[in-house]
Amino acid sequence: MTEQHLLTGRAPAIAPADVRTVACIGAGVIGGGWAAHFLAAGYDVVAWDPAPDAERRLRDLVATAWPALEDLGLAERAAIDNLTVVATLAEAVSGADFVQESAPERLDTKVALLAEIAAAAPPGVVVASSTSGYSMTEMQTAAATPERLVVGHPFNPPYLAPLVEVVGGERTAGWATEWASAFYTEAGKTVITMDTELPGFIGNRIQEAAWREALHMVGAGEATVAQIDQAMTSGPGLRWAFFGPCLTFHLAGGEGGMAHMLDHFGPALKYPWTRLESPELTPELRDRMVEQTEEVAAGRSITRLIAQRDRRMIAVLNALAEVDRAEAAEAREQETP
Amino acid sequence: MTEQHLLTGRAPAIAPADVRTVACIGAGVIGGGWAAHFLAAGYDVVAWDPAPDAERRLRDLVATAWPALEDLGLAERAAIDNLTVVATLAEAVSGADFVQESAPERLDTKVALLAEIAAAAPPGVVVASSTSGYSMTEMQTAAATPERLVVGHPFNPPYLAPLVEVVGGERTAGWATEWASAFYTEAGKTVITMDTELPGFIGNRIQEAAWREALHMVGAGEATVAQIDQAMTSGPGLRWAFFGPCLTFHLAGGEGGMAHMLDHFGPALKYPWTRLESPELTPELRDRMVEQTEEVAAGRSITRLIAQRDRRMIAVLNALAEVDRAEAAEAREQETP
Repeated sequence: MTEQHLLTGRAPAIAPADVRTVACIGAGVIGGGWAAHFLAAGYDVVAWDPAPDAERRLRDLVATAWPALEDLGLAERAAIDNLTVVATLAEAVSGADFVQESAPERLDTKVALLAEIAAAAPPGVVVASSTSGYSMTEMQTAAATPERLVVGHPFNPPYLAPLVEVVGGERTAGWATEWASAFYTEAGKTVITMDTELPGFIGNRIQEAAWREALHMVGAGEATVAQIDQAMTSGPGLRWAFFGPCLTFHLAGGEGGMAHMLDHFGPALKYPWTRLESPELTPELRDRMVEQTEEVAAGRSITRLIAQRDRRMIAVLNALAEVDRAEAAEAREQETP
Repeated sequence: MTEQHLLTGRAPAIAPADVRTVACIGAGVIGGGWAAHFLAAGYDVVAWDPAPDAERRLRDLVATAWPALEDLGLAERAAIDNLTVVATLAEAVSGADFVQESAPERLDTKVALLAEIAAAAPPGVVVASSTSGYSMTEMQTAAATPERLVVGHPFNPPYLAPLVEVVGGERTAGWATEWASAFYTEAGKTVITMDTELPGFIGNRIQEAAWREALHMVGAGEATVAQIDQAMTSGPGLRWAFFGPCLTFHLAGGEGGMAHMLDHFGPALKYPWTRLESPELTPELRDRMVEQTEEVAAGRSITRLIAQRDRRMIAVLNALAEVDRAEAAEAREQETP
């Protein structure tokens, strides 16, 4: 411990399970969404945002999200009153056990703000940035204590989407990334801890590939926005709510799974089905896909996976149909007072 | 009518609403899935597949899918007994009001089979191919009556995923595409009728873009299958079950919607967030995206859309959590007999 401490900078100030107070720096759509999530998870939240009407917008956002969070289930001591909005950054972070930065997506802003937070936060307190694409290596350049700075990238809205991608920069200590991953898990998130500073992380890369293909189609007049959105929500999107692209294609291979799928449909990678150039399906990549997919399948047979897929797809379809019906009924009620 | 009839070949034999008997040619995963869907929608299904144990596998598939289809709600006269398996293609299509071809994905197979179906099906009966990527122009070359051949591309499993993409070939008559779209709608599917023979149609292009990016990441050792699948199901996939990529990004723009999103985050298109090259965000493309997204939003404010998104996301999360709990309880029951 002592040796690691000397090598990597400070150790964490507190255990992830003992965190009580979270500082949210920046309280727009993402920062406010984080505030709502941390409140629902039972933390005290201290927020700061330099925008003139930031407090009103933040409190509106949290109030609007609250019924949804109640439906999902609140933590024991969760309360909307555990939110404090303060006038300075220093005040926000001075008593925090963890800091979540969600400033506008400009590199110079992020660099300056993270340096300011690192100067004001108590020693050993981990600071995470919500950046959607900058690397921590780029952002931690001006900070006096870069070892405790990590990326903690959420998906919108942070109070509902479980995903957080955690990755450190070149000067981030291993303990800080580990601590952040453990803390987010404690706070109810689904955490992916990445070893590489991959531009856009993982979720955004997939999302961006789909988005660029959509823009290409609209630009070329091949499809409309309505057709693209409809295709997603009636097709691949329904499955991706519970099985990712790899497990989905594991099922497309029949009893042979991913191995059969790649061996049989591998040549389809050369089809002009998207503008995205296909990778070379080398034997190494083929084997890696098969092996890692089997890990995800974790012993479940294709038949079992199909049963699990169908059950979830029906649950999703029925749940969405129920919301549609409820909204239609509410609209009718409003028409006839 | 007479003139159109002369110009475009035969008129349809029957109105879409009057269809009683559907022929399924090819009864593997996709053809069998179609059979299950048509049975659940209340049709008589006559199936043919040359594989030796095709009938057993088909009846197994339908029997396995049936409880799921009951959960989703069966049509009035739906019955598993309305399935007949016959020994020849001619027998299958001779009494059909509509034919769905789901043969293996090989062009020569499709060309030959569609010619055979076109020769044997009653005049004016529309024939649809489940092809996941060939164009009807390529496939209809050997058919004597090409005007009634269309693509009707489903998503897997066809008995649960609502999407069907309909598009004709160069020699397909307008009435045939119209008829097929009307019939699929009648049969409970969500139909996208395309004007262009776009390779991969729409759903597969989006899916393929995500898939290729996933393969690239695994190939480069940047992410694992487990991380990619987890990122999808905890992040973008959850939203795509009900809001497509365009409406999702309409919300990312705050009150300014798609217009603000493109004007503000447009430069992000140049970021190396995926291997997919970005389209040029010309003023024309920008305006087209904004205009078409407003059409999809159909007058709903951003606030209203956010409320609708949150409600659906919670419904999906709760529905999936309930399935997880039910499966865990079942597993426990099986352990302690």
